[in-house]
Amino acid sequence: MDTNRPTIPAAEEILGGYFPVLDHGFVSLVDYMGSDEDVERAARVSYGAGTRKVSQTRGLVRYLRRHHHTTPSEMVEFKFHCAMPMFVARQWIRHRTASVNELSARYSLMPLLFYRPEEAHFALQSRSNRQGREGGAPPEVYRQAVERWERLRGDASATYRWLLEEDVAREIARIDLPVSTYTQWYWKIDLHNLLHFLTLRVDERAQWEIRQFARVIAGVVARVAPLSFEAWVDYDLSSRPLSRAERQVLARLLVADEAGVRAKEGAAASVDELKAAGLSPREIRELAEKLQTPSHEDFDLDLSTMRSAEEMEKKMYQAVPGSFE
Amino acid sequence: MDTNRPTIPAAEEILGGYFPVLDHGFVSLVDYMGSDEDVERAARVSYGAGTRKVSQTRGLVRYLRRHHHTTPSEMVEFKFHCAMPMFVARQWIRHRTASVNELSARYSLMPLLFYRPEEAHFALQSRSNRQGREGGAPPEVYRQAVERWERLRGDASATYRWLLEEDVAREIARIDLPVSTYTQWYWKIDLHNLLHFLTLRVDERAQWEIRQFARVIAGVVARVAPLSFEAWVDYDLSSRPLSRAERQVLARLLVADEAGVRAKEGAAASVDELKAAGLSPREIRELAEKLQTPSHEDFDLDLSTMRSAEEMEKKMYQAVPGSFE
Amino acid sequence: MDTNRPTIPAAEEILGGYFPVLDHGFVSLVDYMGSDEDVERAARVSYGAGTRKVSQTRGLVRYLRRHHHTTPSEMVEFKFHCAMPMFVARQWIRHRTASVNELSARYSLMPLLFYRPEEAHFALQSRSNRQGREGGAPPEVYRQAVERWERLRGDASATYRWLLEEDVAREIARIDLPVSTYTQWYWKIDLHNLLHFLTLRVDERAQWEIRQFARVIAGVVARVAPLSFEAWVDYDLSSRPLSRAERQVLARLLVADEAGVRAKEGAAASVDELKAAGLSPREIRELAEKLQTPSHEDFDLDLSTMRSAEEMEKKMYQAVPGSFE
Amino acid sequence: MDTNRPTIPAAEEILGGYFPVLDHGFVSLVDYMGSDEDVERAARVSYGAGTRKVSQTRGLVRYLRRHHHTTPSEMVEFKFHCAMPMFVARQWIRHRTASVNELSARYSLMPLLFYRPEEAHFALQSRSNRQGREGGAPPEVYRQAVERWERLRGDASATYRWLLEEDVAREIARIDLPVSTYTQWYWKIDLHNLLHFLTLRVDERAQWEIRQFARVIAGVVARVAPLSFEAWVDYDLSSRPLSRAERQVLARLLVADEAGVRAKEGAAASVDELKAAGLSPREIRELAEKLQTPSHEDFDLDLSTMRSAEEMEKKMYQAVPGSFE
Repeated sequence: MDTNRPTIPAAEEILGGYFPVLDHGFVSLVDYMGSDEDVERAARVSYGAGTRKVSQTRGLVRYLRRHHHTTPSEMVEFKFHCAMPMFVARQWIRHRTASVNELSARYSLMPLLFYRPEEAHFALQSRSNRQGREGGAPPEVYRQAVERWERLRGDASATYRWLLEEDVAREIARIDLPVSTYTQWYWKIDLHNLLHFLTLRVDERAQWEIRQFARVIAGVVARVAPLSFEAWVDYDLSSRPLSRAERQVLARLLVADEAGVRAKEGAAASVDELKAAGLSPREIRELAEKLQTPSHEDFDLDLSTMRSAEEMEKKMYQAVPGSFE
Repeated sequence: MDTNRPTIPAAEEILGGYFPVLDHGFVSLVDYMGSDEDVERAARVSYGAGTRKVSQTRGLVRYLRRHHHTTPSEMVEFKFHCAMPMFVARQWIRHRTASVNELSARYSLMPLLFYRPEEAHFALQSRSNRQGREGGAPPEVYRQAVERWERLRGDASATYRWLLEEDVAREIARIDLPVSTYTQWYWKIDLHNLLHFLTLRVDERAQWEIRQFARVIAGVVARVAPLSFEAWVDYDLSSRPLSRAERQVLARLLVADEAGVRAKEGAAASVDELKAAGLSPREIRELAEKLQTPSHEDFDLDLSTMRSAEEMEKKMYQAVPGSFE
Repeated sequence: MDTNRPTIPAAEEILGGYFPVLDHGFVSLVDYMGSDEDVERAARVSYGAGTRKVSQTRGLVRYLRRHHHTTPSEMVEFKFHCAMPMFVARQWIRHRTASVNELSARYSLMPLLFYRPEEAHFALQSRSNRQGREGGAPPEVYRQAVERWERLRGDASATYRWLLEEDVAREIARIDLPVSTYTQWYWKIDLHNLLHFLTLRVDERAQWEIRQFARVIAGVVARVAPLSFEAWVDYDLSSRPLSRAERQVLARLLVADEAGVRAKEGAAASVDELKAAGLSPREIRELAEKLQTPSHEDFDLDLSTMRSAEEMEKKMYQAVPGSFE
Repeated sequence: MDTNRPTIPAAEEILGGYFPVLDHGFVSLVDYMGSDEDVERAARVSYGAGTRKVSQTRGLVRYLRRHHHTTPSEMVEFKFHCAMPMFVARQWIRHRTASVNELSARYSLMPLLFYRPEEAHFALQSRSNRQGREGGAPPEVYRQAVERWERLRGDASATYRWLLEEDVAREIARIDLPVSTYTQWYWKIDLHNLLHFLTLRVDERAQWEIRQFARVIAGVVARVAPLSFEAWVDYDLSSRPLSRAERQVLARLLVADEAGVRAKEGAAASVDELKAAGLSPREIRELAEKLQTPSHEDFDLDLSTMRSAEEMEKKMYQAVPGSFE
C-alpha cells in the first residue's frame, strides 16, 4: 500500500514475519510508527526556532540518550504479536507502560502447547545469585524431569479436554493448566519503554527464557531505529554506573584533563581500602566486572528462521482441543 | 503510635487484619493515606480563594464523582497484602495504575496451596455470555473433577519437591505448577483507580473468583472513605449509561421539566421501533435491565472472620516444601 | 512510499496538513498507526481459537465500547503537531497518558504570537457554572480589553526582545510572557486515551478555547477510525448515566420487557418525590437534560482550511525575535 | 491522633509545616505513607519463604537501588502542598507518574504574586549549555529588568482586576497573567518516582528556580526514608555512568581483581585515542567530570524557616483581588 508516513525498508522486510522463540513461542512485528528521524523531529520542537543548525540525527540521538532526555524516543511505537509460556508472560506483564491484549482462557480454548526446557538450559540453583541458575544438572535428573513433565502435561491436557467435553465453563476448566502452557498477546509499546524493557530483560540476571524473547525484540529494534539502538547499546546495555564511592576511588587512581586520561603512577586501592570507602564485598566484585572490557552482543535477526502468519496460526490451531468446536 | 496524619477509626479497626477469601486466599489492609476529607482538601486547592463557601464534604464528593472529576480521589491511597490463585492474579495485574510486589518463584519456595472450587461454583459454560458460566454441573462431574484436581496437584507438588531436592533452579522447578496455585503480593493503589478496579471486578461479568476479592476490598474502602464509597455505589456501581439511541427513545416516552418527570400518555416503543432506532437485540435486552429498580449490594466486612498476620503467615509457611531450607 | 502496514485513505488525505485553530494555533496529524480493523485484530487475540465466527468489525467495535473493553482501542496510535496558547496547553497536559515534546523556552526563542479572543467569545462569568462563562460582555468592555491586551503584549514583547539583546538567559527572559502566548508540541496518544480526552474536552464545560482544538482532533479521529468514532459518539459523547436514584425513579414510570418499552399510564415523579429519592436540585436539572433528545454534533473537517507545513512554519518563524540569531 | 500505621518521628516533626522557596513559593509535606521498613517489607514478599535471613534494611535498600529493583520503593508515598511560578509548574508537571490538583484560574481568583529573580541569579545565556545560564549580567541591566517587570506586573494586575470588576469570566480575565505568576497545587507521588524527579531536578542542568524546590523536597525525603535517601545519593545523584567506549578505555588503564583496583604503570589515553574510541569532544569533557571526586551536597532542612499553614494561607489570601468577593 501507498503511504505518506515514514517507512523503513529494513522494518518492512520483517513486518508480519514470525520469528520462533523457544519450542513453541514467537515474536512478530505487526506494525510500527516512526524511526530515528522522528525522534529528532520531536526533539527539535523543543529545539526549534532560535537554535542553530545541529549536526545530524546520530549526534542528537546519542546526546539525548546519554543525557536521559527520553521523551523524544516515546514518539516511536512498536506493535508485536508474541507467544510465550505463562511464567514468562507473568514476568513480561510487569512492564506497565505498554498496551496488551492477551488470549482469554475464559472465552477461548487454549492451544495445548507447553514449554519444555532443553537439556542445555536445565540448570541448578545459583549459589551466587539467589534468583538465578548456574551449572548443569545431571543428565539422569533431566531425563526424569522430562518424564514427569510429559506425564503432568498429558494429565493436565486430558483433564482440560474432559472438562470441556462435560461443558464445564472454560474459565474453570483451565485452572489446572501449568504455567509452562503457552499463551499469546498483542503488545504495543513505545521505543523509550521498549529499550527499558530490553535493558532489564536481555540482562543475564533475567530468567534465560524471557531473555530469548528480548533478544529477538532487540533485533527488531535494530532494524526499525538503528541509531537509537546503537546509542542504547553504548549508553545503556554496555554501560555501567560508577557509584559515589567508586568515583572517589577512581579519582585517586586516574587523572583526567584536557590531555586525556592517565593512570597515576603506582596508585592502587586494596580490598581493605575499597571496604573503607564503603563498598560491600558484593560491590567489590561488581566493580571488577565494570572495569572489564565490555563484551560485544549480537542481536541480528536470522531471517532464515522467519515464518509466515499462516504457518504459525495453523500450528497454534492444531494444538487447540478441537472436537467440541 | 502517635501521628498528626488524618486517621480513620473504622480503618484502624481492621488495619493489619487478614480477611480470608476462597479456600486459601486473603485480603489485608496494610496501610492507608487519607480519607474523604482529603479528597475535599485537594479539590479545594482547585476551588480555593475566590469561591464561595461550599456545603459539606458529602455534597462535594458526590458532585466530583458525578461529573468525573476524578483527580482529587487520587489523593487517597491504600496498601493491601493479598493472596490469590495465579489465574486470578493474572486478571488482577491487568490494572496497570497500581504498584505491585509479588512473591518471586525464582527466589522463593512456593507454598503448595491450590484453589479448589466449591460445588456451588462449579458451573457450565454460559450460553448468553461467551466468557462466563451459568447453571450447575452434574454432581458426578464435580466429583470426578475433584479427583482429577487432587491427583494433578499431588503430582505437580511431588515434581516440584523432587526438583528442589535435586537442587534444580527454582525458576525451572516451578514451571509445571498449575495456575490454581496461590501466589501473594503487596498492592498499592489510589482511591480513584481502586474504585475503577471495583467497578470492573465486582461486576457479575467478572470471573466469580476475583469478585470475591473485589467484594472484600469494597468493604475496606467503605471503612476508609465512606462518602466516596457511597457516591461510587450511587453513580458508578448502580448506575447505567443511556446511549444516544436510548435517550432518543426515552425522550419520546417521558417529559422532564421543572415540575418533575412524567410518563407520556400511551407512549411506547416496540421492539421494532427500538431496532429502527439502532439498538441491537443485545442492546434491547440490556435496556430492559437498565430500567429495572437497581438491586442493593452489601459489602460490609464480617469482622468475625478477621485473622491475625501471624496466623496467616503460619498457614502459608507450613505449605512451603520445608526439608531443604 | 510503499508499506505493508495498514493504510487509511481518508487519513492519508490529511496527513501532514495543518488545520488552523483560533487566531494562531493549529492541529496537524503527523503520523498514525492502525485503524478499526486493528482494534478487532487485537481483541480477537483474546477471542481467538475456540470462538465462533463473529459478525463484522462494526458490531465488535460497538460491543467493546459499550462494555468498556477499552484495551483493544489502545492498539491504534496518533501523533499530532499542535500549537495553542499556554493556558490551553496547561489544561491539555493534565492528560497524562500521552507523550509530549514541547518547544523549550529555555533553549529556543519563542514566536511572539498571542491569543486574542474574538468579541463573540468574550463573555461574563457564568452564574450557573462557577468555572464557565455565559452571556456577552458589553462592546465597550471588549474594546477596552483589546486595547489593554495590545499594550500588555507589546510591553511583554519589548521586554523579551530587550532581555535577549542584553544576552540574558532565555529561561529568564521569558518569565513575563503572558499565558496567552502560543506554544507548540508534538503529542502522541492512543485511540482509547484520545477518545477519553475528547469526551472531556469537546464538552461544553471545558473552556471554549480548548474545545476548538478538541473538535478538530475529533474530525481527525473520524477519518482514521470511523467505526470507533461512531461508537464513541453513540456510547460516550451523546450518552448520559442514570444514577441509582434515577433508575429507581424511571423504573416506576416505565415498563421494559420483551415487547419493548412503554410509559406507565399516569405515572409521574414530582420534584418533591425526586428529592425524596435523593436527587439534589442540581441533579434534578441534570436529569431533565438527560431525558432530552440528544443533539447532533458535526465534527467534519473543512479541508479548504488545510495549510501546508511550510506555510505554518514560515508564519511561526516570522514571529520569532530575529535580530540576534 | 493514635494510629497503627508506621510513623516516622522525623517526618512528623515537619508534617504540615511550610518551607518558603523563592520569594513567594513554598513546599509543605501534607501526608506520607510508609518508610524504609516498608520498602523492605514489600520486597520481602518477593523474597519470602524459602530465602535465608537477610542482613538489615539498609543492606537490602542499597542492594535494591543499586540493581534498579525499583518497585518496592513505589510502596512509600508522599503528599505535598506547593506554590511555584507557572513556568516552574510547567516543568514540574512533565513528571506524569504523580497526582496533581492545581488551583483553577477558571474557578478561583488568582493571588497576584509574581516571581522576581534576585540579582545573584539574573544571568546571561550559557555558551556551553544551550538551555542554561552562566555568568552575571551587568547591574544596570538587572536594574532596568526589575523596572520593566514591576511595570508589566502592575499592568497585568490592573487588567486582571478591571476585567473581574466588569464581571468578565475568570477563565478569560487571566489570559494575560505572566508565567512568573505563582500557582499552587497538591502533589502526590511515590518514593521511586519522587527520587527520579529529584535526580533530574536537583541537577545543575535543571533551571535554577525548580532546583530550589527540588532541594527542599530532597530534605523532606531524607526525613521520611533516610536509608533510601542515602542510597539515592550514593547510587544515583553522585553516580555517573561509564559508557561502553569509556569502559574500553578504563579497562586499559586499570586492573581490577580480588586484590582490589590498581593503575597500570604508565597507561594513558590521549584525546586522540579517546576520539578513536568513539568519544565526542563533549563526551571527553564529560568523562573528566565523572572522574573527579564527587562533591558533597547537603539537603538538610532549616527548621527555623518553617511556617504554619495559617501564616501561608493568610499571605496568599491577601494577594487575591478582594473587592468582588
